[in-house]
Amino acid sequence: MSAFTHYRATHTLKSLAQHPFDLTQPGNLSPARIQNLTAESCGYKLLYGTERVTDEVMTALHAMALEARVHEKMEKMQAGEVINKIEGFPSENRPVLHTAMRDFFDHPNSAPAAREVAQAAQQEHNKLKAFLANNDKTGQFTQLISIGIGGSDLGPKALYLSLQHLQKPDRAVHFVSNVDPDDISSVLRQVDLKKTLVIVVSKSGTTLETLTNEEIARKHLIAAGLKPEKHIVAITSQGSPMDNKKRYLECFYMWDSIGGRYSCTSMVGAVALSFAFGHDVFFEILRGANAMDKAALTKEVKSNLPLMLALLSIWNRNFLNCSTCAIVPYSQALWRFSAHIQQVEMESNGKRIDQRGSPVDFATAPVIWGEAGTAAQHSFYQLIHQGTAVVPVEFIGFLESQYGEDLEVQGTTSQEKLLSNLIAQAIALATGQKNDNPNKVFPGNRPSLLLVAQKLTPYASGALFALYEHKVAFEGFIWGINSFDQEGVQLGKVLAEKVIKQFVAQHKGQSEKEIEQIFPLGAAFLKQLQDNPVHK
Amino acid sequence: MSAFTHYRATHTLKSLAQHPFDLTQPGNLSPARIQNLTAESCGYKLLYGTERVTDEVMTALHAMALEARVHEKMEKMQAGEVINKIEGFPSENRPVLHTAMRDFFDHPNSAPAAREVAQAAQQEHNKLKAFLANNDKTGQFTQLISIGIGGSDLGPKALYLSLQHLQKPDRAVHFVSNVDPDDISSVLRQVDLKKTLVIVVSKSGTTLETLTNEEIARKHLIAAGLKPEKHIVAITSQGSPMDNKKRYLECFYMWDSIGGRYSCTSMVGAVALSFAFGHDVFFEILRGANAMDKAALTKEVKSNLPLMLALLSIWNRNFLNCSTCAIVPYSQALWRFSAHIQQVEMESNGKRIDQRGSPVDFATAPVIWGEAGTAAQHSFYQLIHQGTAVVPVEFIGFLESQYGEDLEVQGTTSQEKLLSNLIAQAIALATGQKNDNPNKVFPGNRPSLLLVAQKLTPYASGALFALYEHKVAFEGFIWGINSFDQEGVQLGKVLAEKVIKQFVAQHKGQSEKEIEQIFPLGAAFLKQLQDNPVHK
Repeated sequence: MSAFTHYRATHTLKSLAQHPFDLTQPGNLSPARIQNLTAESCGYKLLYGTERVTDEVMTALHAMALEARVHEKMEKMQAGEVINKIEGFPSENRPVLHTAMRDFFDHPNSAPAAREVAQAAQQEHNKLKAFLANNDKTGQFTQLISIGIGGSDLGPKALYLSLQHLQKPDRAVHFVSNVDPDDISSVLRQVDLKKTLVIVVSKSGTTLETLTNEEIARKHLIAAGLKPEKHIVAITSQGSPMDNKKRYLECFYMWDSIGGRYSCTSMVGAVALSFAFGHDVFFEILRGANAMDKAALTKEVKSNLPLMLALLSIWNRNFLNCSTCAIVPYSQALWRFSAHIQQVEMESNGKRIDQRGSPVDFATAPVIWGEAGTAAQHSFYQLIHQGTAVVPVEFIGFLESQYGEDLEVQGTTSQEKLLSNLIAQAIALATGQKNDNPNKVFPGNRPSLLLVAQKLTPYASGALFALYEHKVAFEGFIWGINSFDQEGVQLGKVLAEKVIKQFVAQHKGQSEKEIEQIFPLGAAFLKQLQDNPVHK
Repeated sequence: MSAFTHYRATHTLKSLAQHPFDLTQPGNLSPARIQNLTAESCGYKLLYGTERVTDEVMTALHAMALEARVHEKMEKMQAGEVINKIEGFPSENRPVLHTAMRDFFDHPNSAPAAREVAQAAQQEHNKLKAFLANNDKTGQFTQLISIGIGGSDLGPKALYLSLQHLQKPDRAVHFVSNVDPDDISSVLRQVDLKKTLVIVVSKSGTTLETLTNEEIARKHLIAAGLKPEKHIVAITSQGSPMDNKKRYLECFYMWDSIGGRYSCTSMVGAVALSFAFGHDVFFEILRGANAMDKAALTKEVKSNLPLMLALLSIWNRNFLNCSTCAIVPYSQALWRFSAHIQQVEMESNGKRIDQRGSPVDFATAPVIWGEAGTAAQHSFYQLIHQGTAVVPVEFIGFLESQYGEDLEVQGTTSQEKLLSNLIAQAIALATGQKNDNPNKVFPGNRPSLLLVAQKLTPYASGALFALYEHKVAFEGFIWGINSFDQEGVQLGKVLAEKVIKQFVAQHKGQSEKEIEQIFPLGAAFLKQLQDNPVHK
């Protein structure tokens, strides 16, 4: 049986979950509760009065965290110990050091492994600063195409969109990820290649989609009479097949200890975002992320928002049995944040074995999904309020808008309307509504929490991204799983290579039988696809 | 007890679900199975050999559909009978006639209610055609901002993105939905207002977000020395507060029988998409949607893809107890399709009472979520393959790309690599993998289906959007719920109005106590938000 199942606190929590706090009872969700159930880190306040927890539950959750030795594990992680491993089996066997990518400020981590990676990262920033200063001088590149997939796409893109109001007036950034040729085709017709810097992001330097799209970009550059090696920059591991200054204008490095989904504060995000916003803005992002890294080391649980989020999430997942969690930022700039966190959480904690290689006997990561509010209110909130499934919601909001342009319509600004909706939803989900018309009954007791900060600045954005990185890490620590590998993506890759071989064989004119033998199931699918009904 | 629980087929299916088909048994997922478990409508082939079904299961599912009288209900819907209702209680009490929005081709529905709405819709197209022909002549508008939210945003935007390769070279379309003032601020700085047509979409003419954003657009037009009534077009119900030719350059109509989430083939989608692509392209979309409407009337289940999808979905939801469903199009152009279907399904079927007003005793709509493949493979597939939750996947693919630009790299084109990945994933999820290393074990038996067509043309796009509309309708018919109202969004609106009143009171300088009395819980939240920790 898994360690998680054996924590003493787990038994306490199971018994408390028999009668979770009833938010629909008049008086239970009181102004005092809203005021008392709060916590703070790095400018974010967490309001969790609308979760189905009591002091007793929070105490047991905290006890569970201590049984799981989460503080020790977080310290080990940030110190660069080898925590990405499965004991007794071949595994990645690496440290996990995305925190070193921003450990440039007060009280840097003194562990040698962390120091070394932080210093190497600082060196890349110096290279990047010089590279961009030179471009500012020559004015050669005004547009940037970022080619990368997964962690090399979702995080940087979500972070970029979160601060697009700060984009320099003469700059534009485009992201290409999909091997679907239409993805790059649609981007290539939006740019002037002469003024375009292409960055190709792949830690291994072997990612199928990324290299294919790079080849297409090279072809287009050549067709436009340009030299690819003067337009393309590599972001990759030192020594990877892409670490080649003959083929690339510049090479920026990342390291094995930086997982793709945790890489947006490394060079993976730095190049595109510093290009768009400037070096100083990017450093403000890093400063916010670094502050949250330090908060994650705090033992005082109410000052450790990542741990608070992890505890509430585990309560909803393992004790109230909610299989999904919606992240709904009431901020249009964060409209791709949930897509990024979907990856961070689901690729990290969508696991079925513990760190000793034994199958777990409890539920790990929920499905993470979401869209920006208020738009989401007009889309999936019907189910959240009145569906048969209970979906915990994590709301995120800001007091001020980014552009600072607003209009009072019928006595309130848009920003005030936005916040009014945010507050109203948390209350409505919690309390529900009785009614004689069964269609107007809202069962309530639908848990949510609210994260709020003054304004989505670069600092606040960096802190928010790091908050969720560490939330996910703490969940993994408590569940006793390895949150830092992704073996689950391998089988599909292997089988895709087989089908690709079948396409190659078709090109070569090999017989149907020969093609079939490569991978009979693949051939059966291929036949069905190619024998497609004709439509007008 | 609900009718659904009492179908004879439900009992059979419950017993069959004790031992669902085992896709991991060698030989069980055979080439013959892949070939035999197929169905077709309107140029789409469905491959469902990778679902955990047998002939016996399919027979029982079909029997369930007949017990639920789905064909009769679909006929009634398309004929314009009043099916949007809860018996015995006040409800919307309306017909559901989005199919009439495209019933302009062969064998139109002869029912008078359907005829009448189709003819009215045809008249709006005639107005629109003249309006756009005039603009083509004058060349006045080259850019369009669409202001709308929910169904007035997600469907039109997803449909627009699905065919963006057909956009006329001198045209651009922007969508604004959120009441967050940053949403419209970011769009307004991308356009030249002089050349911009603004369409404001609200069936009721009273949607808070939409009217607020319209006011901001009006303010900007006036500030630019332009006349709003020469730039803004209304898309609304006849007789709504927005049906006013003095305030709008033109008014295009929709009807009460067109639900927002089902409105993208009405004027709600027609104006922006015909502006971007031309009238003929939009009519091809309608032709595809209309063909799928007819397919939904077919009693031959293997030629009725919407019904097939509904049956497989109910098998996974109610009998295999899967609480979510991922929609993953292997087509970048469909990257917002799942966000649209998220609304269509979750707002339609995220319900807890049946059509007689009794609480249901079974699970209704799952959480629908998803992103485009292959990008998604590098994001959440870890959980789909190796997480503790089983997530059914609906794959969508096309043999040809849209732009038709491709490059052979290492012997295959990008499109072939895309399809190879699609095929590989369906097989990998189904069969799984045994291994001595527990981290390389894939449990398999994770159901998926595959929809494939030749190319994502306007016809194919229209057919796909209608396919999912009718899938959702058939699910609702079987569950015996009303898929066409959305009472679940009301409570949040009512409470938001109260918080808005508190902001108004703050502006007026009313006392804290007075403000508190308006809505004590709202005041408690507001206080916490405004008393926010300061960060650097």
